Amino acid sequence: MIILDGKNLSAKIKDEVKADASSYKKTPLLAVILVGEDEASKIYINNKRKACEYVGMSFLLIHFNDGTSEDKIVKKIKSLNKDESINGIIVQLPLPKQYNKDRLLNTISPEKDVDGLGNYSQARLLSGNPNFVPCTALGILEIFDYYKINLEGKNVCVVGRSNLVGKPTMLMCLKRNATCTICHSKTKNLSDYTKNADILIVCTGKKHLIDESMIKKDAIIIDVGITKEDGVLYGDVNPNVDNKCSYKTPVPGGVGPMTVCMLLKNTMIAYKRQNGIKDEE
Amino acid sequence: MIILDGKNLSAKIKDEVKADASSYKKTPLLAVILVGEDEASKIYINNKRKACEYVGMSFLLIHFNDGTSEDKIVKKIKSLNKDESINGIIVQLPLPKQYNKDRLLNTISPEKDVDGLGNYSQARLLSGNPNFVPCTALGILEIFDYYKINLEGKNVCVVGRSNLVGKPTMLMCLKRNATCTICHSKTKNLSDYTKNADILIVCTGKKHLIDESMIKKDAIIIDVGITKEDGVLYGDVNPNVDNKCSYKTPVPGGVGPMTVCMLLKNTMIAYKRQNGIKDEE
Repeated sequence: MIILDGKNLSAKIKDEVKADASSYKKTPLLAVILVGEDEASKIYINNKRKACEYVGMSFLLIHFNDGTSEDKIVKKIKSLNKDESINGIIVQLPLPKQYNKDRLLNTISPEKDVDGLGNYSQARLLSGNPNFVPCTALGILEIFDYYKINLEGKNVCVVGRSNLVGKPTMLMCLKRNATCTICHSKTKNLSDYTKNADILIVCTGKKHLIDESMIKKDAIIIDVGITKEDGVLYGDVNPNVDNKCSYKTPVPGGVGPMTVCMLLKNTMIAYKRQNGIKDEE
Repeated sequence: MIILDGKNLSAKIKDEVKADASSYKKTPLLAVILVGEDEASKIYINNKRKACEYVGMSFLLIHFNDGTSEDKIVKKIKSLNKDESINGIIVQLPLPKQYNKDRLLNTISPEKDVDGLGNYSQARLLSGNPNFVPCTALGILEIFDYYKINLEGKNVCVVGRSNLVGKPTMLMCLKRNATCTICHSKTKNLSDYTKNADILIVCTGKKHLIDESMIKKDAIIIDVGITKEDGVLYGDVNPNVDNKCSYKTPVPGGVGPMTVCMLLKNTMIAYKRQNGIKDEE
Protein backbone atom coordinates (compact mmCIF):
# COMPACT_ATOMS: atom_id res chain seq x y z
CA MET A 1 0.00 0.00 0.00
CA ILE A 2 1.28 3.41 -0.95
CA ILE A 3 0.59 6.35 1.35
CA LEU A 4 -0.82 9.40 -0.41
CA ASP A 5 1.28 11.81 1.59
CA GLY A 6 -0.64 15.09 1.77
CA LYS A 7 1.72 16.54 4.32
CA ASN A 8 4.71 16.15 2.07
CA LEU A 9 2.85 17.17 -1.08
CA SER A 10 1.39 20.25 0.55
CA ALA A 11 4.88 21.28 1.70
CA LYS A 12 6.10 20.87 -1.86
CA ILE A 13 3.22 22.94 -3.26
CA LYS A 14 3.73 25.61 -0.63
CA ASP A 15 7.35 25.93 -1.71
CA GLU A 16 6.20 26.30 -5.29
CA VAL A 17 3.68 28.97 -4.32
CA LYS A 18 6.40 30.71 -2.30
CA ALA A 19 8.77 30.79 -5.26
CA ASP A 20 5.94 31.97 -7.49
CA ALA A 21 4.74 34.69 -5.11
CA SER A 22 8.26 36.00 -4.56
CA SER A 23 8.71 36.50 -8.30
CA TYR A 24 6.29 39.45 -8.36
CA LYS A 25 6.71 42.91 -6.93
CA LYS A 26 3.31 43.20 -5.27
CA THR A 27 2.57 40.78 -2.44
CA PRO A 28 -0.59 38.67 -2.78
CA LEU A 29 -3.06 39.27 0.03
CA LEU A 30 -5.74 37.04 1.52
CA ALA A 31 -8.44 38.62 3.68
CA VAL A 32 -10.35 36.50 6.19
CA ILE A 33 -13.60 37.57 7.82
CA LEU A 34 -14.26 36.05 11.23
CA VAL A 35 -17.49 36.75 13.10
CA GLY A 36 -17.66 35.73 16.75
CA GLU A 37 -15.37 33.63 18.88
CA ASP A 38 -15.65 30.05 17.63
CA GLU A 39 -12.54 28.34 18.97
CA ALA A 40 -12.16 25.82 16.14
CA SER A 41 -12.45 28.67 13.64
CA LYS A 42 -9.65 30.50 15.39
CA ILE A 43 -7.41 27.45 15.10
CA TYR A 44 -8.20 27.08 11.39
CA ILE A 45 -7.58 30.78 10.83
CA ASN A 46 -4.28 30.57 12.63
CA ASN A 47 -3.24 27.72 10.31
CA LYS A 48 -4.19 29.84 7.33
CA ARG A 49 -2.21 32.76 8.69
CA LYS A 50 0.87 30.61 9.25
CA ALA A 51 0.59 29.15 5.75
CA CYS A 52 0.33 32.64 4.25
CA GLU A 53 3.34 33.82 6.22
CA TYR A 54 5.33 30.79 5.09
CA VAL A 55 4.73 31.45 1.41
CA GLY A 56 5.20 35.20 1.72
CA MET A 57 1.59 36.21 1.26
CA SER A 58 -0.02 38.93 3.31
CA PHE A 59 -2.83 37.93 5.59
CA LEU A 60 -5.52 40.29 6.81
CA LEU A 61 -7.88 39.15 9.55
CA ILE A 62 -11.03 41.20 9.99
CA HIS A 63 -12.62 40.13 13.23
CA PHE A 64 -16.18 41.21 14.01
CA ASN A 65 -17.86 40.65 17.35
CA ASP A 66 -20.87 38.37 17.36
CA GLY A 67 -23.66 40.91 17.31
CA THR A 68 -22.13 43.17 14.64
CA SER A 69 -24.85 44.15 12.18
CA GLU A 70 -24.87 42.09 9.01
CA ASP A 71 -25.05 45.27 6.96
CA LYS A 72 -21.79 46.43 8.47
CA ILE A 73 -20.08 43.18 7.47
CA VAL A 74 -21.56 43.42 3.97
CA LYS A 75 -20.24 46.96 3.69
CA LYS A 76 -16.80 45.80 4.75
CA ILE A 77 -16.78 42.97 2.20
CA LYS A 78 -17.78 45.45 -0.50
CA SER A 79 -14.89 47.68 0.39
CA LEU A 80 -12.53 44.68 0.28
CA ASN A 81 -13.92 43.83 -3.18
CA LYS A 82 -12.93 47.28 -4.40
CA ASP A 83 -9.53 47.30 -2.72
CA GLU A 84 -6.97 46.38 -5.37
CA SER A 85 -4.41 45.28 -2.82
CA ILE A 86 -6.69 42.40 -1.77
CA ASN A 87 -6.73 39.31 -3.97
CA GLY A 88 -8.75 36.75 -2.07
CA ILE A 89 -11.56 37.05 0.47
CA ILE A 90 -13.08 34.29 2.59
CA VAL A 91 -15.73 34.27 5.28
CA GLN A 92 -14.76 31.74 7.95
CA LEU A 93 -17.57 29.26 8.56
CA PRO A 94 -19.59 28.47 10.58
CA LEU A 95 -21.10 31.88 11.24
CA PRO A 96 -23.14 32.59 14.37
CA LYS A 97 -26.73 31.54 13.65
CA GLN A 98 -28.32 34.93 13.18
CA TYR A 99 -26.22 35.74 10.13
CA ASN A 100 -27.29 35.02 6.57
CA LYS A 101 -24.41 32.93 5.28
CA ASP A 102 -25.58 33.08 1.68
CA ARG A 103 -25.78 36.84 1.75
CA LEU A 104 -22.27 37.24 3.11
CA LEU A 105 -20.71 34.64 0.81
CA ASN A 106 -22.42 36.20 -2.19
CA THR A 107 -21.19 39.66 -1.34
CA ILE A 108 -17.64 38.52 -2.12
CA SER A 109 -16.91 39.34 -5.73
CA PRO A 110 -16.48 36.21 -7.90
CA GLU A 111 -12.93 37.32 -8.78
CA LYS A 112 -11.92 37.11 -5.10
CA ASP A 113 -14.05 34.12 -4.03
CA VAL A 114 -11.09 31.84 -3.29
CA ASP A 115 -13.16 29.40 -1.23
CA GLY A 116 -15.44 28.94 -4.25
CA LEU A 117 -18.61 29.06 -2.17
CA GLY A 118 -20.46 31.96 -3.78
CA ASN A 119 -23.28 31.35 -6.27
CA TYR A 120 -21.16 32.25 -9.25
CA SER A 121 -18.44 29.77 -8.33
CA GLN A 122 -20.97 27.11 -7.35
CA ALA A 123 -22.87 27.44 -10.64
CA ARG A 124 -19.63 27.24 -12.61
CA LEU A 125 -18.64 24.17 -10.61
CA LEU A 126 -21.94 22.51 -11.47
CA SER A 127 -21.63 23.41 -15.14
CA GLY A 128 -18.22 21.75 -15.35
CA ASN A 129 -16.37 24.98 -16.03
CA PRO A 130 -15.16 25.98 -12.56
CA ASN A 131 -14.13 29.43 -11.36
CA PHE A 132 -12.50 28.68 -7.98
CA VAL A 133 -12.87 25.06 -6.86
CA PRO A 134 -13.62 24.57 -3.14
CA CYS A 135 -10.34 23.82 -1.40
CA THR A 136 -10.88 20.27 -0.15
CA ALA A 137 -12.07 19.04 -3.56
CA LEU A 138 -9.14 20.81 -5.19
CA GLY A 139 -6.72 19.26 -2.70
CA ILE A 140 -7.99 15.79 -3.56
CA LEU A 141 -7.47 16.50 -7.27
CA GLU A 142 -3.91 17.63 -6.55
CA ILE A 143 -3.25 14.33 -4.83
CA PHE A 144 -4.57 12.45 -7.88
CA ASP A 145 -2.37 14.58 -10.14
CA TYR A 146 0.77 14.13 -8.12
CA TYR A 147 0.37 10.37 -7.83
CA LYS A 148 -0.71 10.11 -11.48
CA ILE A 149 -4.09 8.58 -10.65
CA ASN A 150 -6.24 8.84 -13.75
CA LEU A 151 -9.98 8.99 -13.07
CA GLU A 152 -11.32 8.39 -16.56
CA GLY A 153 -13.82 5.55 -16.60
CA LYS A 154 -13.08 4.70 -12.96
CA ASN A 155 -15.82 3.84 -10.50
CA VAL A 156 -15.59 6.64 -7.93
CA CYS A 157 -17.76 6.42 -4.84
CA VAL A 158 -18.09 9.50 -2.64
CA VAL A 159 -19.53 8.83 0.80
CA GLY A 160 -20.94 12.07 2.20
CA ARG A 161 -22.95 14.70 0.34
CA SER A 162 -21.99 17.96 2.02
CA ASN A 163 -22.03 21.16 0.00
CA LEU A 164 -18.52 21.91 1.21
CA VAL A 165 -16.84 18.60 0.35
CA GLY A 166 -18.95 15.72 -0.97
CA LYS A 167 -20.79 17.40 -3.82
CA PRO A 168 -17.88 19.50 -5.13
CA THR A 169 -15.58 16.47 -5.03
CA MET A 170 -18.11 14.34 -6.89
CA LEU A 171 -18.54 17.03 -9.57
CA MET A 172 -14.80 17.40 -10.07
CA CYS A 173 -14.40 13.62 -10.41
CA LEU A 174 -17.27 13.65 -12.92
CA LYS A 175 -15.48 16.36 -14.85
CA ARG A 176 -12.48 14.03 -15.01
CA ASN A 177 -14.73 11.42 -16.59
CA ALA A 178 -15.13 9.12 -13.62
CA THR A 179 -18.44 7.31 -13.17
CA CYS A 180 -19.57 8.78 -9.86
CA THR A 181 -21.78 7.51 -7.08
CA ILE A 182 -22.71 9.63 -4.09
CA CYS A 183 -23.73 7.87 -0.86
CA HIS A 184 -24.96 9.39 2.39
CA SER A 185 -26.70 8.72 5.67
CA LYS A 186 -29.86 7.47 3.92
CA THR A 187 -28.00 5.02 1.70
CA LYS A 188 -29.06 1.42 2.22
CA ASN A 189 -26.39 -1.30 2.11
CA LEU A 190 -23.52 1.15 1.88
CA SER A 191 -21.01 -1.62 1.25
CA ASP A 192 -22.79 -2.58 -2.01
CA TYR A 193 -21.48 0.71 -3.34
CA THR A 194 -18.15 1.03 -1.57
CA LYS A 195 -17.12 -2.52 -2.54
CA ASN A 196 -17.37 -1.69 -6.23
CA ALA A 197 -15.38 1.53 -6.02
CA ASP A 198 -11.99 1.77 -7.70
CA ILE A 199 -11.61 5.03 -5.82
CA LEU A 200 -13.41 5.56 -2.54
CA ILE A 201 -13.65 9.08 -1.11
CA VAL A 202 -15.05 9.23 2.40
CA CYS A 203 -16.14 12.52 3.96
CA THR A 204 -18.64 11.81 6.71
CA GLY A 205 -16.83 12.59 9.94
CA LYS A 206 -17.86 9.17 11.28
CA LYS A 207 -14.88 7.47 12.87
CA HIS A 208 -13.89 4.25 11.08
CA LEU A 209 -17.15 4.03 9.13
CA ILE A 210 -15.40 2.09 6.37
CA ASP A 211 -13.57 -1.11 7.14
CA GLU A 212 -11.65 -3.71 5.19
CA SER A 213 -14.76 -5.78 4.39
CA MET A 214 -16.34 -2.80 2.63
CA ILE A 215 -13.65 -2.06 0.06
CA LYS A 216 -12.53 -3.56 -3.20
CA LYS A 217 -9.09 -5.12 -3.41
CA ASP A 218 -6.52 -2.56 -4.59
CA ALA A 219 -8.95 0.33 -4.14
CA ILE A 220 -7.62 3.86 -3.78
CA ILE A 221 -8.87 5.37 -0.53
CA ILE A 222 -9.24 9.10 0.15
CA ASP A 223 -10.12 9.64 3.80
CA VAL A 224 -11.36 13.19 4.39
CA GLY A 225 -13.00 12.76 7.78
CA ILE A 226 -11.45 13.73 11.07
CA THR A 227 -12.77 12.80 14.48
CA LYS A 228 -10.92 13.78 17.64
CA GLU A 229 -11.26 11.55 20.70
CA ASP A 230 -9.13 11.98 23.80
CA GLY A 231 -6.65 14.01 21.83
CA VAL A 232 -6.26 11.37 19.11
CA LEU A 233 -7.34 11.97 15.51
CA TYR A 234 -9.26 9.28 13.64
CA GLY A 235 -10.31 9.15 10.02
CA ASP A 236 -13.49 7.75 8.50
CA VAL A 237 -11.57 4.66 7.39
CA ASN A 238 -10.43 1.84 9.64
CA PRO A 239 -6.68 1.14 9.37
CA ASN A 240 -7.50 -2.54 8.72
CA VAL A 241 -7.93 -1.57 5.04
CA ASP A 242 -4.17 -1.10 4.76
CA ASN A 243 -3.39 -4.57 3.45
CA LYS A 244 -6.22 -4.51 0.93
CA CYS A 245 -6.07 -1.08 -0.67
CA SER A 246 -3.43 0.11 -3.13
CA TYR A 247 -3.22 3.76 -2.05
CA LYS A 248 -4.54 5.63 0.97
CA THR A 249 -4.47 9.12 2.45
CA PRO A 250 -3.55 8.94 6.15
CA VAL A 251 -5.33 10.84 8.93
CA PRO A 252 -3.69 13.12 9.93
CA GLY A 253 -1.36 14.10 7.10
CA GLY A 254 -3.56 13.33 4.10
CA VAL A 255 -6.30 15.58 2.79
CA GLY A 256 -6.18 17.98 5.76
CA PRO A 257 -2.90 19.77 4.96
CA MET A 258 -3.89 19.95 1.28
CA THR A 259 -6.97 22.04 2.05
CA VAL A 260 -5.16 25.04 3.52
CA CYS A 261 -2.56 24.75 0.82
CA MET A 262 -5.24 24.99 -1.90
CA LEU A 263 -6.47 28.22 -0.38
CA LEU A 264 -3.02 29.63 -1.05
CA LYS A 265 -3.09 28.23 -4.55
CA ASN A 266 -6.51 29.76 -5.27
CA THR A 267 -5.35 33.09 -3.87
CA MET A 268 -2.35 32.95 -6.17
CA ILE A 269 -4.63 32.21 -9.14
CA ALA A 270 -6.81 35.17 -8.13
CA TYR A 271 -3.74 37.38 -7.85
CA LYS A 272 -2.56 36.44 -11.31
CA ARG A 273 -5.95 36.96 -12.92
CA GLN A 274 -6.33 40.33 -11.26
CA ASN A 275 -2.91 41.39 -12.42
CA GLY A 276 -3.20 40.00 -15.94
CA ILE A 277 -0.46 37.42 -15.39
CA LYS A 278 -0.82 34.27 -17.47
CA ASP A 279 -0.34 31.00 -15.68
CA GLU A 280 2.12 28.60 -17.24
CA GLU A 281 -0.17 25.61 -16.72
CA MET B 1 -45.61 -3.10 -16.29
CA ILE B 2 -47.28 0.18 -15.51
CA ILE B 3 -46.93 3.04 -17.98
CA LEU B 4 -45.89 6.33 -16.38
CA ASP B 5 -48.25 8.38 -18.51
CA GLY B 6 -46.74 11.83 -18.86
CA LYS B 7 -49.24 12.87 -21.49
CA ASN B 8 -52.15 12.25 -19.20
CA LEU B 9 -50.44 13.65 -16.12
CA SER B 10 -49.35 16.79 -17.93
CA ALA B 11 -52.94 17.35 -19.13
CA LYS B 12 -54.11 17.00 -15.54
CA ILE B 13 -51.49 19.44 -14.26
CA LYS B 14 -52.30 21.91 -17.03
CA ASP B 15 -55.94 21.85 -15.96
CA GLU B 16 -54.84 22.53 -12.39
CA VAL B 17 -52.65 25.44 -13.52
CA LYS B 18 -55.55 26.73 -15.61
CA ALA B 19 -57.92 26.69 -12.65
CA ASP B 20 -55.25 28.31 -10.50
CA ALA B 21 -54.37 31.02 -13.02
CA SER B 22 -58.02 31.90 -13.61
CA SER B 23 -58.54 32.52 -9.91
CA TYR B 24 -56.47 35.72 -10.02
CA LYS B 25 -57.30 39.02 -11.64
CA LYS B 26 -53.97 39.63 -13.32
CA THR B 27 -52.94 37.18 -16.03
CA PRO B 28 -49.54 35.48 -15.58
CA LEU B 29 -47.14 36.21 -18.42
CA LEU B 30 -44.22 34.23 -19.81
CA ALA B 31 -41.72 36.01 -22.06
CA VAL B 32 -39.57 33.99 -24.46
CA ILE B 33 -36.47 35.34 -26.17
CA LEU B 34 -35.63 33.74 -29.50
CA VAL B 35 -32.50 34.72 -31.40
CA GLY B 36 -32.19 33.53 -35.00
CA GLU B 37 -34.23 31.08 -37.01
CA ASP B 38 -33.53 27.63 -35.56
CA GLU B 39 -36.42 25.50 -36.81
CA ALA B 40 -36.51 23.11 -33.85
CA SER B 41 -36.56 26.10 -31.48
CA LYS B 42 -39.56 27.49 -33.33
CA ILE B 43 -41.43 24.23 -32.88
CA TYR B 44 -40.61 24.14 -29.16
CA ILE B 45 -41.66 27.76 -28.78
CA ASN B 46 -44.90 27.08 -30.56
CA ASN B 47 -45.60 24.26 -28.10
CA LYS B 48 -44.92 26.63 -25.24
CA ARG B 49 -47.22 29.23 -26.74
CA LYS B 50 -50.03 26.71 -27.16
CA ALA B 51 -49.59 25.46 -23.61
CA CYS B 52 -49.74 29.04 -22.28
CA GLU B 53 -52.88 29.75 -24.29
CA TYR B 54 -54.48 26.56 -23.00
CA VAL B 55 -53.97 27.48 -19.36
CA GLY B 56 -54.87 31.13 -19.85
CA MET B 57 -51.39 32.57 -19.48
CA SER B 58 -50.12 35.35 -21.66
CA PHE B 59 -47.22 34.57 -23.92
CA LEU B 60 -44.80 37.14 -25.27
CA LEU B 61 -42.32 36.15 -27.95
CA ILE B 62 -39.44 38.53 -28.50
CA HIS B 63 -37.72 37.48 -31.68
CA PHE B 64 -34.31 38.94 -32.54
CA ASN B 65 -32.58 38.40 -35.85
CA ASP B 66 -29.33 36.49 -35.76
CA GLY B 67 -26.85 39.34 -35.85
CA THR B 68 -28.64 41.54 -33.31
CA SER B 69 -26.06 42.95 -30.92
CA GLU B 70 -25.80 41.07 -27.64
CA ASP B 71 -26.01 44.36 -25.75
CA LYS B 72 -29.37 45.06 -27.33
CA ILE B 73 -30.69 41.68 -26.14
CA VAL B 74 -29.26 42.27 -22.66
CA LYS B 75 -30.98 45.66 -22.57
CA LYS B 76 -34.27 44.05 -23.54
CA ILE B 77 -33.97 41.38 -20.85
CA LYS B 78 -33.25 44.08 -18.28
CA SER B 79 -36.39 45.93 -19.28
CA LEU B 80 -38.38 42.67 -19.00
CA ASN B 81 -36.90 42.17 -15.51
CA LYS B 82 -38.30 45.54 -14.47
CA ASP B 83 -41.67 45.09 -16.13
CA GLU B 84 -44.11 44.01 -13.41
CA SER B 85 -46.52 42.47 -15.90
CA ILE B 86 -43.92 39.83 -16.81
CA ASN B 87 -43.53 36.88 -14.45
CA GLY B 88 -41.21 34.48 -16.22
CA ILE B 89 -38.43 34.97 -18.79
CA ILE B 90 -36.62 32.32 -20.76
CA VAL B 91 -33.97 32.44 -23.45
CA GLN B 92 -34.64 29.69 -25.98
CA LEU B 93 -31.57 27.53 -26.48
CA PRO B 94 -29.47 26.86 -28.46
CA LEU B 95 -28.35 30.40 -29.30
CA PRO B 96 -26.40 31.18 -32.47
CA LYS B 97 -22.72 30.58 -31.72
CA GLN B 98 -21.53 34.17 -31.43
CA TYR B 99 -23.73 34.88 -28.41
CA ASN B 100 -22.58 34.47 -24.83
CA LYS B 101 -25.21 32.12 -23.43
CA ASP B 102 -24.06 32.61 -19.84
CA ARG B 103 -24.29 36.37 -20.11
CA LEU B 104 -27.84 36.29 -21.49
CA LEU B 105 -29.08 33.63 -19.03
CA ASN B 106 -27.58 35.55 -16.12
CA THR B 107 -29.19 38.80 -17.14
CA ILE B 108 -32.58 37.27 -16.30
CA SER B 109 -33.41 38.20 -12.73
CA PRO B 110 -33.49 35.16 -10.40
CA GLU B 111 -37.15 35.88 -9.56
CA LYS B 112 -38.11 35.36 -13.21
CA ASP B 113 -35.63 32.61 -14.14
CA VAL B 114 -38.30 29.94 -14.75
CA ASP B 115 -35.96 27.66 -16.69
CA GLY B 116 -33.66 27.62 -13.65
CA LEU B 117 -30.51 28.00 -15.76
CA GLY B 118 -29.02 31.19 -14.30
CA ASN B 119 -26.18 31.05 -11.80
CA TYR B 120 -28.39 31.85 -8.84
CA SER B 121 -30.80 29.01 -9.63
CA GLN B 122 -27.96 26.62 -10.47
CA ALA B 123 -26.14 27.34 -7.22
CA ARG B 124 -29.33 26.87 -5.23
CA LEU B 125 -29.94 23.59 -7.06
CA LEU B 126 -26.46 22.40 -6.13
CA SER B 127 -26.89 23.44 -2.51
CA GLY B 128 -30.09 21.40 -2.19
CA ASN B 129 -32.30 24.44 -1.67
CA PRO B 130 -33.62 25.10 -5.20
CA ASN B 131 -35.03 28.33 -6.56
CA PHE B 132 -36.55 27.23 -9.91
CA VAL B 133 -35.76 23.63 -10.83
CA PRO B 134 -34.95 23.04 -14.54
CA CYS B 135 -38.12 21.81 -16.22
CA THR B 136 -37.16 18.28 -17.28
CA ALA B 137 -35.85 17.38 -13.83
CA LEU B 138 -38.98 18.88 -12.27
CA GLY B 139 -41.19 16.93 -14.66
CA ILE B 140 -39.52 13.68 -13.62
CA LEU B 141 -40.13 14.52 -9.95
CA GLU B 142 -43.80 15.21 -10.71
CA ILE B 143 -44.06 11.75 -12.25
CA PHE B 144 -42.54 10.22 -9.12
CA ASP B 145 -44.98 12.17 -6.96
CA TYR B 146 -48.06 11.26 -8.94
CA TYR B 147 -47.22 7.56 -9.02
CA LYS B 148 -46.11 7.62 -5.37
CA ILE B 149 -42.58 6.46 -6.12
CA ASN B 150 -40.47 7.13 -3.04
CA LEU B 151 -36.77 7.68 -3.76
CA GLU B 152 -35.38 7.42 -0.24
CA GLY B 153 -32.57 4.90 -0.05
CA LYS B 154 -33.20 3.76 -3.63
CA ASN B 155 -30.37 3.11 -6.05
CA VAL B 156 -30.92 5.72 -8.76
CA CYS B 157 -28.73 5.58 -11.85
CA VAL B 158 -28.76 8.56 -14.22
CA VAL B 159 -27.22 7.87 -17.63
CA GLY B 160 -26.22 11.19 -19.19
CA ARG B 161 -24.52 14.14 -17.51
CA SER B 162 -25.85 17.17 -19.36
CA ASN B 163 -26.21 20.45 -17.52
CA LEU B 164 -29.78 20.73 -18.75
CA VAL B 165 -31.07 17.30 -17.69
CA GLY B 166 -28.64 14.74 -16.24
CA LYS B 167 -26.99 16.78 -13.49
CA PRO B 168 -30.14 18.60 -12.28
CA THR B 169 -32.07 15.32 -12.21
CA MET B 170 -29.31 13.61 -10.24
CA LEU B 171 -29.20 16.46 -7.73
CA MET B 172 -32.96 16.42 -7.22
CA CYS B 173 -32.91 12.64 -6.67
CA LEU B 174 -30.07 13.14 -4.19
CA LYS B 175 -32.18 15.72 -2.38
CA ARG B 176 -34.89 13.07 -2.09
CA ASN B 177 -32.36 10.83 -0.39
CA ALA B 178 -31.68 8.43 -3.23
CA THR B 179 -28.18 7.01 -3.59
CA CYS B 180 -27.22 8.42 -6.98
CA THR B 181 -24.86 7.25 -9.68
CA ILE B 182 -24.17 9.29 -12.79
CA CYS B 183 -22.96 7.50 -15.92
CA HIS B 184 -21.90 8.98 -19.26
CA SER B 185 -20.08 8.34 -22.51
CA LYS B 186 -16.79 7.57 -20.70
CA THR B 187 -18.37 5.04 -18.33
CA LYS B 188 -16.89 1.56 -18.65
CA ASN B 189 -19.22 -1.44 -18.37
CA LEU B 190 -22.37 0.66 -18.28
CA SER B 191 -24.54 -2.34 -17.51
CA ASP B 192 -22.68 -2.91 -14.22
CA TYR B 193 -24.36 0.28 -13.04
CA THR B 194 -27.71 0.11 -14.82
CA LYS B 195 -28.31 -3.48 -13.66
CA ASN B 196 -28.18 -2.43 -10.03
CA ALA B 197 -30.53 0.53 -10.40
CA ASP B 198 -33.92 0.47 -8.73
CA ILE B 199 -34.67 3.56 -10.77
CA LEU B 200 -32.93 4.11 -14.10
CA ILE B 201 -33.11 7.54 -15.71
CA VAL B 202 -31.72 7.66 -19.24
CA CYS B 203 -31.03 10.96 -20.97
CA THR B 204 -28.45 10.40 -23.68
CA GLY B 205 -30.33 10.79 -26.95
CA LYS B 206 -28.90 7.45 -28.11
CA LYS B 207 -31.67 5.32 -29.60
CA HIS B 208 -32.29 2.12 -27.62
CA LEU B 209 -29.02 2.39 -25.67
CA ILE B 210 -30.52 0.40 -22.80
CA ASP B 211 -31.98 -3.03 -23.40
CA GLU B 212 -33.58 -5.72 -21.30
CA SER B 213 -30.26 -7.37 -20.40
CA MET B 214 -29.05 -4.12 -18.82
CA ILE B 215 -31.80 -3.58 -16.28
CA LYS B 216 -32.75 -5.02 -12.93
CA LYS B 217 -36.00 -6.96 -12.64
CA ASP B 218 -38.84 -4.64 -11.58
CA ALA B 219 -36.77 -1.52 -12.19
CA ILE B 220 -38.49 1.81 -12.74
CA ILE B 221 -37.41 3.28 -16.08
CA ILE B 222 -37.49 6.98 -16.95
CA ASP B 223 -36.67 7.42 -20.62
CA VAL B 224 -35.85 11.04 -21.41
CA GLY B 225 -34.16 10.63 -24.79
CA ILE B 226 -35.83 11.24 -28.11
CA THR B 227 -34.38 10.28 -31.48
CA LYS B 228 -36.34 10.86 -34.68
CA GLU B 229 -35.72 8.51 -37.62
CA ASP B 230 -37.90 8.55 -40.74
CA GLY B 231 -40.60 10.38 -38.85
CA VAL B 232 -40.69 7.86 -35.99
CA LEU B 233 -39.68 8.77 -32.42
CA TYR B 234 -37.47 6.43 -30.42
CA GLY B 235 -36.41 6.60 -26.80
CA ASP B 236 -33.09 5.69 -25.22
CA VAL B 237 -34.63 2.44 -23.95
CA ASN B 238 -35.43 -0.61 -26.06
CA PRO B 239 -39.08 -1.73 -25.72
CA ASN B 240 -37.84 -5.23 -24.88
CA VAL B 241 -37.53 -4.01 -21.26
CA ASP B 242 -41.33 -3.98 -20.99
CA ASN B 243 -41.69 -7.44 -19.50
CA LYS B 244 -38.91 -6.91 -17.00
CA CYS B 245 -39.45 -3.43 -15.57
CA SER B 246 -42.23 -2.44 -13.18
CA TYR B 247 -42.85 1.12 -14.45
CA LYS B 248 -41.76 2.95 -17.57
CA THR B 249 -42.23 6.31 -19.24
CA PRO B 250 -43.12 5.83 -22.93
CA VAL B 251 -41.56 7.78 -25.79
CA PRO B 252 -43.45 9.78 -26.92
CA GLY B 253 -45.89 10.63 -24.14
CA GLY B 254 -43.63 10.31 -21.11
CA VAL B 255 -41.16 12.93 -19.94
CA GLY B 256 -41.57 15.14 -23.04
CA PRO B 257 -45.03 16.57 -22.31
CA MET B 258 -44.07 17.08 -18.66
CA THR B 259 -41.26 19.46 -19.56
CA VAL B 260 -43.41 22.17 -21.18
CA CYS B 261 -45.96 21.71 -18.44
CA MET B 262 -43.33 22.40 -15.76
CA LEU B 263 -42.47 25.67 -17.45
CA LEU B 264 -46.08 26.70 -16.84
CA LYS B 265 -45.84 25.51 -13.26
CA ASN B 266 -42.63 27.46 -12.66
CA THR B 267 -44.17 30.57 -14.22
CA MET B 268 -47.14 30.18 -11.89
CA ILE B 269 -44.79 29.87 -8.91
CA ALA B 270 -42.96 33.01 -10.08
CA TYR B 271 -46.28 34.83 -10.46
CA LYS B 272 -47.34 33.94 -6.96
CA ARG B 273 -44.04 34.92 -5.39
CA GLN B 274 -44.05 38.24 -7.22
CA ASN B 275 -47.60 38.95 -6.11
CA GLY B 276 -47.12 37.80 -2.54
CA ILE B 277 -49.55 34.88 -2.93
CA LYS B 278 -48.81 31.92 -0.68
CA ASP B 279 -48.89 28.52 -2.29
CA GLU B 280 -51.02 25.91 -0.57
CA GLU B 281 -48.38 23.21 -0.91
